[in-house]
Amino acid sequence: MLDAPRAIDDFRSLLKDLPGPDPEAVAAARERNGQLTKPPGALGRLEDLAIWYAGWRGDPRPRIERPQVVVFAGNHGVAARGVSAFPADVTVQMVANFKAGGAAINQLAGLAGARLDVVALDLDRPTADFTEGPAMSEAEFLAALMAGWEAVDRASDLLVVGEMGIANTTAAAAVAAGLFGGEAEDWVGRGTGVDDAGLARKREVVAAGLARHAEALSDPFEVLRRLGGRELAAMAGAVLAARQARIPVILDGFICTAAVAPLEAVRPGALDHAVAGHVSEEPGHARLLARLGKEPLLRLGLRLGEGSGAALAIQVLKGALACHSGMATFAEAGVAEG
Amino acid sequence: MLDAPRAIDDFRSLLKDLPGPDPEAVAAARERNGQLTKPPGALGRLEDLAIWYAGWRGDPRPRIERPQVVVFAGNHGVAARGVSAFPADVTVQMVANFKAGGAAINQLAGLAGARLDVVALDLDRPTADFTEGPAMSEAEFLAALMAGWEAVDRASDLLVVGEMGIANTTAAAAVAAGLFGGEAEDWVGRGTGVDDAGLARKREVVAAGLARHAEALSDPFEVLRRLGGRELAAMAGAVLAARQARIPVILDGFICTAAVAPLEAVRPGALDHAVAGHVSEEPGHARLLARLGKEPLLRLGLRLGEGSGAALAIQVLKGALACHSGMATFAEAGVAEG
Repeated sequence: MLDAPRAIDDFRSLLKDLPGPDPEAVAAARERNGQLTKPPGALGRLEDLAIWYAGWRGDPRPRIERPQVVVFAGNHGVAARGVSAFPADVTVQMVANFKAGGAAINQLAGLAGARLDVVALDLDRPTADFTEGPAMSEAEFLAALMAGWEAVDRASDLLVVGEMGIANTTAAAAVAAGLFGGEAEDWVGRGTGVDDAGLARKREVVAAGLARHAEALSDPFEVLRRLGGRELAAMAGAVLAARQARIPVILDGFICTAAVAPLEAVRPGALDHAVAGHVSEEPGHARLLARLGKEPLLRLGLRLGEGSGAALAIQVLKGALACHSGMATFAEAGVAEG
Repeated sequence: MLDAPRAIDDFRSLLKDLPGPDPEAVAAARERNGQLTKPPGALGRLEDLAIWYAGWRGDPRPRIERPQVVVFAGNHGVAARGVSAFPADVTVQMVANFKAGGAAINQLAGLAGARLDVVALDLDRPTADFTEGPAMSEAEFLAALMAGWEAVDRASDLLVVGEMGIANTTAAAAVAAGLFGGEAEDWVGRGTGVDDAGLARKREVVAAGLARHAEALSDPFEVLRRLGGRELAAMAGAVLAARQARIPVILDGFICTAAVAPLEAVRPGALDHAVAGHVSEEPGHARLLARLGKEPLLRLGLRLGEGSGAALAIQVLKGALACHSGMATFAEAGVAEG
């Protein structure tokens, strides 16, 4: 296994040799789950979550003690095409807001007891307009993957990746369509709230991008490089780094999910260490999760990004582990097993 | 307004004169929500939750600092009819487990920073078999309502009520059917996990109870007294006490929801201070929530009771308030409003 990738092909190589969950920890956690003072299965999905987490951590009775949230920010050439309700300047303004503690993700990471890191990716150099050429050169794509790879604290025990980038639902829709096919309108939504004219422009831009890069869409990494953006590539790099370190991941919304989907497209199972934190209002997200076989933990109509839905979902996972690791067994409590 | 009810009719009277949310706090919270550094509506249901909570607390920028979870336990005459996968002894055993800190609710209340109170209601005197007569005498019903009324800490700022009681999904199904009509099979599920024969017995028992008390079903309080149980009546008393003190409530699963449904049946809007914490696997729960017009916060396949789903949902409400009360406004952060 590679310790530190240095080329795009190194990331491809990593996907061929992925660590899996610890089968002994899975078996021990499953056995413990069956002994806890509750009817079998009564904690529903919380039971599956606890066993899943135990397996990836190699610990049959784990807790979350060092969660990390990383927000990656990038700017997009296609923002100039009027695909967002907000001006591109908002990306850098929101990064300042993250650093000052004023954004939603600051509050939700704080509630979860999570470390929050903010990684701004060349905000003064937007990616190229993908209707005209690849969003990123190979060097830019590699730098973004590496930024994600390096942002992960290997001593953390849970990773959430989020993003900020005006126009990045357009990039995410293009990536999703590039990976999974379908028409632009299947994947394009209103993002932060574009009007009907904006929505029509988004569809046109995505369709134009798909047409422009049609010959390269069979390669998921090329889809991400040509149609994605720096913060999307960084999320993919971070989630792959987490896999190598057996750090479980909670995925956020449409953009996050589109960003990491190329990993699964290259190597089915590459996202087995990740659960879907929520399903957003962005209509492509539910479709994307279905393609990845991920059932969301929360359905609250969020559409903010920043990692906000995933950060909130940390609480659900913490609840699962609090029950799994903290409850008494039937024998300990002297309760009849029915 | 009555300060302390002393008769069943006092509870009926309370429902005629219910306090509402503070319209000024609602308006101020709504205005603040519109100024926060996020696209309008991007926090979805979290925005509605924060404004709802602000209204009931009369504070446009509130936090949850003193949540209370109360678990009521009761025993049921119908348990002798083989309607549960567990013996009736488990009720008292689980109360000991709650007191020792070993149950799921202990872990989830702890995670939420909530005070946990356990109120065991005459466990050595099960309610009467409702197929033979009313589950509770008027004196027993009043005592249970009062136990709930008195259990609420008026200095708390959020209430979750939970329950433990072998056979109480049978009681809850009977109450739901008594209030809202339909056949026994529309409301009966497997509870803690009865087999097909047990499920058939539950249906027969509920149908027999409905037939036995058919003449009294037009009075929701009588439905609760005749077909419910002590822990159900106590939950209704507690939720009414919370309303009088403007303490918001998160409802738990099928039994909790059935227990408080009589309040709404007597007085539409009586549960406006309550949100549905989750929808359980018990099939009657979704139907009941639909009748009450409540959209659940979580859908995780739980079917444990104890207040577990509602306690987990405290985290969602805390997340909503963390964002609402902690985020910077556009003006504070220097972010363009689009």
